[in-house]
Amino acid sequence: MRRALDAASEAGTQGEVPIGAVVALDGEIVAVAANRTRQPPDPTGHAEIRALRMAAEALGQDRLTGCDLYVTLEPCAMCAGAISHARIARLYYAASDPKGGAVEHGARVFEQDQCLHRPEVYTGLAEQEAGDMLREFFRERR
Amino acid sequence: MRRALDAASEAGTQGEVPIGAVVALDGEIVAVAANRTRQPPDPTGHAEIRALRMAAEALGQDRLTGCDLYVTLEPCAMCAGAISHARIARLYYAASDPKGGAVEHGARVFEQDQCLHRPEVYTGLAEQEAGDMLREFFRERR
Repeated sequence: MRRALDAASEAGTQGEVPIGAVVALDGEIVAVAANRTRQPPDPTGHAEIRALRMAAEALGQDRLTGCDLYVTLEPCAMCAGAISHARIARLYYAASDPKGGAVEHGARVFEQDQCLHRPEVYTGLAEQEAGDMLREFFRERR
Repeated sequence: MRRALDAASEAGTQGEVPIGAVVALDGEIVAVAANRTRQPPDPTGHAEIRALRMAAEALGQDRLTGCDLYVTLEPCAMCAGAISHARIARLYYAASDPKGGAVEHGARVFEQDQCLHRPEVYTGLAEQEAGDMLREFFRERR
């Protein structure tokens, strides 16, 4: 999660929303990414999507079976769907997100009957730090 | 929708699930894409995600305000979330998908209170042709 927080912080300095994600397999980091939706413009450029794509490329397979995903904010519906498609084994997220999260809020993607793969979900790790980083970012831009 | 069906058909001949998507702005096609999750390996490589990314690159902006998305199958949670993030104005899909769709089924992403942007949704156009293509593809692989 430290690497995810560092990636988030770096994204913030570049004007992107400070959210970071890391994919790991057997304790080894496979991919590190941060939000990047503005430059280049990409509405799907959330940290999780980018990290999953990088990990799939690095491992040469579209199913990341056995992999862990660490992300600094509760995934949205788009990212939760992608996590399920990618067969991520364990999802760790820091801050929960009542406004946009779709794991414990809103669409609750993993709780749907049709969801074909549900990761184990662990929350709360570095919650304060990840949340503060986001609040600070949006306060400065208001 | 014709172009989306053609893209789907071509994907099927390459062993990818035959689903196609088109982004259009003011009646002009901006991006055409099909499912491509295997080569290169990309768990997020659904037709909609790929078409949205291409359109954002082509238009130089991450918000595809005013754009229409045509897709041959009801979008899943990942793709519905992406469609909302991209600010797609009108979504047209052919076949509905009780097993994986998240517009009129499952997570019903656009019906969530937290959903910040809902496209207008139109269904049923070329439903039979799109559905037949998918059924044929999976029957051959069984």
